[in-house]
Amino acid sequence: MAREIERKFLLAGDGWRPHAHSAKRLEQFYLFAGEDRSCRVRITDGASAKLTLKTGRGLSRGEFEYDIPLEDAETLRDSALGRVIEKTRHLVANGRHTIEIDVYEGALDGLIVAEIELTDEDESFEHPDFLGAEVTGDERYLNQTLALRPQVETPEPH
Amino acid sequence: MAREIERKFLLAGDGWRPHAHSAKRLEQFYLFAGEDRSCRVRITDGASAKLTLKTGRGLSRGEFEYDIPLEDAETLRDSALGRVIEKTRHLVANGRHTIEIDVYEGALDGLIVAEIELTDEDESFEHPDFLGAEVTGDERYLNQTLALRPQVETPEPH
Repeated sequence: MAREIERKFLLAGDGWRPHAHSAKRLEQFYLFAGEDRSCRVRITDGASAKLTLKTGRGLSRGEFEYDIPLEDAETLRDSALGRVIEKTRHLVANGRHTIEIDVYEGALDGLIVAEIELTDEDESFEHPDFLGAEVTGDERYLNQTLALRPQVETPEPH
Repeated sequence: MAREIERKFLLAGDGWRPHAHSAKRLEQFYLFAGEDRSCRVRITDGASAKLTLKTGRGLSRGEFEYDIPLEDAETLRDSALGRVIEKTRHLVANGRHTIEIDVYEGALDGLIVAEIELTDEDESFEHPDFLGAEVTGDERYLNQTLALRPQVETPEPH
């Protein structure tokens, strides 16, 4: 079980692109999603798959992640709730941290979101120019919202 | 992924007890349960745990089972929907088949259900005297019902 603190930002331009490395193609979908629990499947580079359970709210959140066979994930995809999210995740080194930049495709084309994982809420980090408005905690950018909302607003490109 | 055909019976007496072997203590609970999908966690003998996803209805049902760490299962138990089912499962050899006999405890004390797994719906099997009324397909005896119904009717003891 892991607990995580992530801060999330929109992008202010393409300045991150020259620094990006290790792109991975991700397909992910929910098997269930409720107020205090969710089950997500993620397929990485069409080659491996993980099942992630999240439980609880606020401080008592838990996250449980298991490798599952790719074949199972592909069958489970037929039971996806809402849409299957397709995105390419780029990594950008940023001091002691790594910024993950998700470039969405398909129904969410045009949306780009950056995330930085911290060990506690007050941890400082370098703030590169390409990070735009912070959207941490904004429900419109939750993975569940992006998968389950019939229509998703995407920001104007910069 | 596995597909299964199970026939389920109440018990007509205790004639099965002298033939029972390999008793296992099972604790199981649901993390979600819907019309066409469910996620169950089962702890066996307080020592090992499995996560089972079931999807679909009728002929297109799928079942996916994964070993998970016992510690995860014990944490997930705090997120159980409804009740945690506790039962002892006994096995009874029956010709080419094995009959599983679940003796429920706690809130479901008094309920005993036998199951036999077949490879197709028309497969014949020996019908020992201790099998009582068939309840295959009876929603009252579905695992989900037993876990989620506030009150569960249990049959009169024989």
